[in-house]
Amino acid sequence: MSRLSDLGEFGLIAHLEKILPGGVSKEWSVAIGDDCAVRRSSGGRSEFLTQDLLFEGVHFLPGNSKHWETVGWKALAVNLSDIAAMGGEPVGAVIGLGLPKRAKLREVEALYRGLARAARRFSCPVVGGDTNRSRGGWTLAVTVLGETRRRPLLRSGARPGDSLWVTGELGGASLAWRAERKGKKIPAAMRRRLLLPTPRLEWGGHLAAFGEVGAAIDLSDGLAGDLGHVARASRVGFDVDLETLPRPRGFAGLCERVGVDALEAMLEGGEDYELLFTLRAGAEKAFGDYARSRGLKVARIGRARRGSGIRWFENGREIPRRFGGYRHF
Amino acid sequence: MSRLSDLGEFGLIAHLEKILPGGVSKEWSVAIGDDCAVRRSSGGRSEFLTQDLLFEGVHFLPGNSKHWETVGWKALAVNLSDIAAMGGEPVGAVIGLGLPKRAKLREVEALYRGLARAARRFSCPVVGGDTNRSRGGWTLAVTVLGETRRRPLLRSGARPGDSLWVTGELGGASLAWRAERKGKKIPAAMRRRLLLPTPRLEWGGHLAAFGEVGAAIDLSDGLAGDLGHVARASRVGFDVDLETLPRPRGFAGLCERVGVDALEAMLEGGEDYELLFTLRAGAEKAFGDYARSRGLKVARIGRARRGSGIRWFENGREIPRRFGGYRHF
Repeated sequence: MSRLSDLGEFGLIAHLEKILPGGVSKEWSVAIGDDCAVRRSSGGRSEFLTQDLLFEGVHFLPGNSKHWETVGWKALAVNLSDIAAMGGEPVGAVIGLGLPKRAKLREVEALYRGLARAARRFSCPVVGGDTNRSRGGWTLAVTVLGETRRRPLLRSGARPGDSLWVTGELGGASLAWRAERKGKKIPAAMRRRLLLPTPRLEWGGHLAAFGEVGAAIDLSDGLAGDLGHVARASRVGFDVDLETLPRPRGFAGLCERVGVDALEAMLEGGEDYELLFTLRAGAEKAFGDYARSRGLKVARIGRARRGSGIRWFENGREIPRRFGGYRHF
Repeated sequence: MSRLSDLGEFGLIAHLEKILPGGVSKEWSVAIGDDCAVRRSSGGRSEFLTQDLLFEGVHFLPGNSKHWETVGWKALAVNLSDIAAMGGEPVGAVIGLGLPKRAKLREVEALYRGLARAARRFSCPVVGGDTNRSRGGWTLAVTVLGETRRRPLLRSGARPGDSLWVTGELGGASLAWRAERKGKKIPAAMRRRLLLPTPRLEWGGHLAAFGEVGAAIDLSDGLAGDLGHVARASRVGFDVDLETLPRPRGFAGLCERVGVDALEAMLEGGEDYELLFTLRAGAEKAFGDYARSRGLKVARIGRARRGSGIRWFENGREIPRRFGGYRHF
């Protein structure tokens, strides 16, 4: 008999998917296996549904009131990031909250202040949910409904020949997390990237509007893992030019001071919540102008090719290192 | 400083609602405070979003494979019951699953078989979710998206003069639960009501189609508690004729054998997942014919009046007993 730990998170999901009745139907064009489930709705619209289940001790730790506010913000923001990856806009969220006996009202209030701040900032009202006692620790279930009138950006949309791009910068959140664990100081902007991530909703909208985007995904588990999802879903391979990865100012020095491998932070660290996407061959020049005029910060980091898997290049030479994503099991 | 236990579940929800940015907007006609959040969608449609967060030790216990199947079925069914209460049809569900280290693959498979059976039976595909490790026990977060082209049935729709009705029978699930705890035998049909509840989707659709329904809610926490929600939301009072409450065949005798107060089981027990609704004055006769022709099993149990609170009558005489609903905190 198989054990959960042998299957791993994604093996388990694939396994369970077989038990469920055909999720992909006329109505749902995408079910399990992308950032959100996608429903073809009326009036040429697509609707998105995405959910995260977050546990104390796994996804967040208890702390002071300020801390609970960041937990609330982040819980909503990371789900909005999944909507952003598909080029959608949020419509509304429902929040399930499980509270241990020791939970204090002021902590719950702080969590909701954080949720409310993110809800206002990203125009995603909290419209319902469920609140009850948990025998374990704090538990948060966040579900977001989103929509778009454009073509949804999917993980499965990359073709050989596409160029590979990423928004913003990589590695900041991971470096901040490791610095925190080691009790080392880090620039405030980098800590904010970890604690108060910004879902790239505006940029995702620009990508969907541009029209020449192949595949897209948000970077939650690290570029190596998330690019692997795109490669499998699109049935392509990728070559990545490591020297082109966009990184925060002074990143190498900070990594050295904290004692972190810079490449691991950028490729395996996760929690950057930037968008990773591909662009049809020939669209690069027009896209560069488009991005500049809209303040969309992007970097070209590689290309899709026939085949499978990911190859890592440094200044034109393939390097033999393997990188992985975060594993839950 | 207030404590969570002082506020209670519904006090906490009302308190947290104040922290959130205005949930009810042009787009969301109903947010926190009904069975589902309701969104005015395109083409005259309304969409519903509802969520439950379920914990091992609070909402279900571990058991054998057969048992895990019933946990999966019930987790989806109770959310579908919220869609039924609004007169809607399910569109799709997302499932968040938190697994303790001791969870076994065959248990997870059994849970998903139960989810899949309910998904097929009630035409609600499972289209996504989140699976990860929990430091506490098993945790299930179920979110269902539903819709209707008719007017949604709300808790706030009752008016003085409306008659009060309930579908099916009351008290069976509660009696089965208490019998199980005491190790006493109970008819299989009553155990099924507890373990494999049927969300009244078809009947909810008939109620919405009839057009003269005022308010509706599903009975999850017991008639006394849930009718209290309708009374507060609609700003009316209710008079209930206890002798008219529909009960399973042989209920009084079974209650006596198990050592359960029959009225408490019907009014406070909860988990019946029947629909409670009001009907506009004068529509009773036409509704009786309509219900009969559609196999909609209903009983008239009282009336709405000006004022607030619930009065209980037995053969025309008010009785002084107070009944309450299930409390989480």
